[in-house]
Amino acid sequence: MNSSGEYFLKTYLDERKNYINEALEHYLPQADTYPSVLSRAVRYSVFAGGKRLRPILCIAAAEAVGGTKEKVCAVACALEMIHTYSLIHDDLPAMDDDEYRRGILTNHKVFGEGIAILAGDALLTEAFSLMSEFNSKEKESAVLRLGVIHEIAKAAGIYGMVGGQTVDLDSEGREVDFETLQYIHTHKTEAMITASLRAGAITAEGSKLQISEITEYGKKIGLAFQIIDDILDLEGNSKTLGKKTGCDGARKKITYPSHAGLEFSRTKAHELVKSARADLASFDNRADPLRMIASYIVERVS
Amino acid sequence: MNSSGEYFLKTYLDERKNYINEALEHYLPQADTYPSVLSRAVRYSVFAGGKRLRPILCIAAAEAVGGTKEKVCAVACALEMIHTYSLIHDDLPAMDDDEYRRGILTNHKVFGEGIAILAGDALLTEAFSLMSEFNSKEKESAVLRLGVIHEIAKAAGIYGMVGGQTVDLDSEGREVDFETLQYIHTHKTEAMITASLRAGAITAEGSKLQISEITEYGKKIGLAFQIIDDILDLEGNSKTLGKKTGCDGARKKITYPSHAGLEFSRTKAHELVKSARADLASFDNRADPLRMIASYIVERVS
Repeated sequence: MNSSGEYFLKTYLDERKNYINEALEHYLPQADTYPSVLSRAVRYSVFAGGKRLRPILCIAAAEAVGGTKEKVCAVACALEMIHTYSLIHDDLPAMDDDEYRRGILTNHKVFGEGIAILAGDALLTEAFSLMSEFNSKEKESAVLRLGVIHEIAKAAGIYGMVGGQTVDLDSEGREVDFETLQYIHTHKTEAMITASLRAGAITAEGSKLQISEITEYGKKIGLAFQIIDDILDLEGNSKTLGKKTGCDGARKKITYPSHAGLEFSRTKAHELVKSARADLASFDNRADPLRMIASYIVERVS
Repeated sequence: MNSSGEYFLKTYLDERKNYINEALEHYLPQADTYPSVLSRAVRYSVFAGGKRLRPILCIAAAEAVGGTKEKVCAVACALEMIHTYSLIHDDLPAMDDDEYRRGILTNHKVFGEGIAILAGDALLTEAFSLMSEFNSKEKESAVLRLGVIHEIAKAAGIYGMVGGQTVDLDSEGREVDFETLQYIHTHKTEAMITASLRAGAITAEGSKLQISEITEYGKKIGLAFQIIDDILDLEGNSKTLGKKTGCDGARKKITYPSHAGLEFSRTKAHELVKSARADLASFDNRADPLRMIASYIVERVS
């Protein structure tokens, strides 16, 4: 990306991130809302400084088909709430047992395991509460909204993210084949990234063709995102541990580069992004943010 | 209840329970659905032999306003899935730390804590997936369905069940006042019981007055149900421990009879049920199951 592109993207991401943060502030309970320990636990993880990638993708997809961020705001925030719930539960001692996330203590380290489980449950439930809050008299929109809720639930559940996390958990400390790794990537990360984009495009009433092209784009950047995550993990470990482990150290967590090699993984991620951008060929410049986010995904360093 | 009433109720409950079990069998993944450990964990707890009270209340409310069980089947099953998720998470070591439920090992004792957390997450998510699966072209129904999803999410989340469970967890081993106990009862149990009834009545297109009367009925039987649960717990403990503890033993769990006394609690439960039945005065005999379920709630022994 050239420097004017970089500037445009940074401005776009910052502006959308602020918009999402303000909306989340509005939708989430205040810190003193009873029971305060739950409200504080929920807010602690939601406002721990995420990239807001999923809601931004949702908004960018809506804008690419001619819609507005206001129209998809509730759905976009719900996507971030579902993402945050999954991080809180994934970090638990019975799962990945992580002490830190985004440079601060994980939820259960601050609030205890019981409250962390409940904070995750609360965020997942409130996401559906938010998406189904629908005062509009536009009956057509109600049908679309139900479809969006269904897609997001599918992508988040047994046949999506929870399924992926189950296989990931079940695979720790064991040798697993490439097929299993692909299942984990597709279900744990890509499903919700694709659902975020589709939710935006559907809510903003994109055409069937537009939604289908954005879906293809989503599958590719979703996989690229996960591959880069794995590479960053590996390089992070290399620096910290002073050695190249090829897998996630003590926990023997399966990764893309440990299976396919670092160079192959990098090339694969770049190819996916190039192909994802090509999927948007028929879109006008309102899809520029989607195009640039694709490039950003392989160029990011954290 | 006289013996013909008892026979009618038993037949009604058995028939509806079988109907719900068959529908759940249809909606849930098969035991060998990948990832099989998750499918088995989900099925283990759903088919552990519950009373199916919430889905039966949903169906009975639909029938009371002239609807059919078929119309509310998906919503009724979703309510049971949400109920089961809450039991799996409540039983976890970080929460109530229970080894047995309904006479068999709890989910985490069989599948491990990580899978139990994921099985709960999966059931909660699939409940919303099921409720939002909506092929109908009836746009009016789509608006109603969104409203039902919203009510159920509200009753299950921060402002309902998860809030109640948080305060319950936070109160263990501490002296709490009667107001806190009432908060726990209202939010942890009654909210979902009332939501189950309202979901049935709304989906079956009951009148505003009918829905409002069923709501009043729900609040009362919801509280009565929790009081009787507390009494049964206390009596169970008395038998098992050979002493009357007045609270839930080692965990000092707050209960209604430990606060208000056993006799007062029993009288209160009976009064609530009587009043709940009176709320249905304007309904015809299609509300008989609701009337009898109210009586059953205070007469049950398990």
